[in-house]
Amino acid sequence: MTTERSVFYISDGTAITAEVLGHAVLSQFPVGTQSVTLPFVENEQRALAVKAQINTLYEKSGIRPLVFFSIVTPEVREIILQSEGFCQDIVQSLVAPLQQELGVPPSPIAHRAYGLTASNLGKYDARIAAIDYTLAHDDGISLRGLEDAQVILLGVSRCGKTPTSLYLAMQFGIRAANYPFIADDMDNLKLPAALRPFQHKLFGLTIDPERLSAIRQERAVNTRYASMRQCRLEVGEVEALFRTHKIRYLNSTNYSVEEIATRILDITGLTRRMF
Amino acid sequence: MTTERSVFYISDGTAITAEVLGHAVLSQFPVGTQSVTLPFVENEQRALAVKAQINTLYEKSGIRPLVFFSIVTPEVREIILQSEGFCQDIVQSLVAPLQQELGVPPSPIAHRAYGLTASNLGKYDARIAAIDYTLAHDDGISLRGLEDAQVILLGVSRCGKTPTSLYLAMQFGIRAANYPFIADDMDNLKLPAALRPFQHKLFGLTIDPERLSAIRQERAVNTRYASMRQCRLEVGEVEALFRTHKIRYLNSTNYSVEEIATRILDITGLTRRMF
Repeated sequence: MTTERSVFYISDGTAITAEVLGHAVLSQFPVGTQSVTLPFVENEQRALAVKAQINTLYEKSGIRPLVFFSIVTPEVREIILQSEGFCQDIVQSLVAPLQQELGVPPSPIAHRAYGLTASNLGKYDARIAAIDYTLAHDDGISLRGLEDAQVILLGVSRCGKTPTSLYLAMQFGIRAANYPFIADDMDNLKLPAALRPFQHKLFGLTIDPERLSAIRQERAVNTRYASMRQCRLEVGEVEALFRTHKIRYLNSTNYSVEEIATRILDITGLTRRMF
Repeated sequence: MTTERSVFYISDGTAITAEVLGHAVLSQFPVGTQSVTLPFVENEQRALAVKAQINTLYEKSGIRPLVFFSIVTPEVREIILQSEGFCQDIVQSLVAPLQQELGVPPSPIAHRAYGLTASNLGKYDARIAAIDYTLAHDDGISLRGLEDAQVILLGVSRCGKTPTSLYLAMQFGIRAANYPFIADDMDNLKLPAALRPFQHKLFGLTIDPERLSAIRQERAVNTRYASMRQCRLEVGEVEALFRTHKIRYLNSTNYSVEEIATRILDITGLTRRMF
């Protein structure tokens, strides 16, 4: 077993892009990592401090830290490149080929990837409005205004409805409501009348009873709610309801919220609102 | 003015990485774009359909669509590369240099960037728990359990507390509570007794009164709540309170939730929990 490799994610902005891409690349290698993220490295002074931090780690361990970075200002970028790290500029390597293809020079401004500008403020405000909508329609809190939902998630308690709804709103600007089927409704489970007019927006989530029971045990150990018997009953009833009403559904057991949200968009044909 | 350029984000997984990086690269160019995201392009059949979609667009417009993609299986990748698009493999270009540096070959598995595995399930569950915590402690709903918060955001209504708290939980696994100062408290504004034991976790958000008023007008047009006078009063009182109690604070006016959240981590020294 090798030791864990040190990784730096560095940017003059949020460093979220560096994290996301570095994580995607590293996930292809069977190597353990220990990562540090350093955002807002905007000037030479901060870059020199970061360079010193990289070099100190190298001197202590004898192993070059991996550095995934994105910095627009050449003088600041140069300081990072002169460190002892194994430095990969994640954005710049794509800028040159793109410049040739587009036939225009880049006009780079630091932090633009997640910056607010006059031209994206409307989209940004719509995304914040989607988060407000989703919070107001979480967990069946309000059945009013469902006509404004773009998707309504259905499922038993703790199958992933709330995190998925919030991710849809936060990342993709989708107004996602969600409605829980609760244990008391399980005898003779019916689709609530309030949801019937929105049949085309309904999307079910289901989950393996074993995983559901494990998740519920974390919150309410040794209760009927968390028992395998109860979880199996609820999942069975709800899946039967999905089939009866021809509601499209997905088993969330082996998926992250990112994957569940993306699959829902893919299946329903909803368009991502990019920020 | 040139026409908008078509962009495809394509992946065998969620395509979130392709979107994030492509967006970062394109934000450096003064070019309007029209984008389509195609996730889960996992087999040759789907890849052939995507290739046809790219080629049709090219034939209609006469302009090569830009394609940012990440696909692990060589046969599927090859089909996309044979399209008429201007194709950039966002992950693969970093894999080769990294392989040399790490001295181990990659063992790529499709969708691993956002996949659940035995080794990250614990981290994933902690992130879901952070979302639960943040929802239960949104908008001062509960002042119980604040000892478990990693940060407690303070500010006037509609200054960005809720989206920022949710982003901190969703993206970084941070347990973020938030507490609103409401208009009725503004005379002789004091720090609530329930918050005083947690002084070291408090973090203030402020906002320019003009932007605050504009945001409030969207929800409650022509009310005292949305008036410039009221917004100016509230912001002034709350900033004075932050200074009196030496609470660190940030003006959110020109920042996106990504930037606000990242700056809070940077200022407080809280560590991101990467998924």
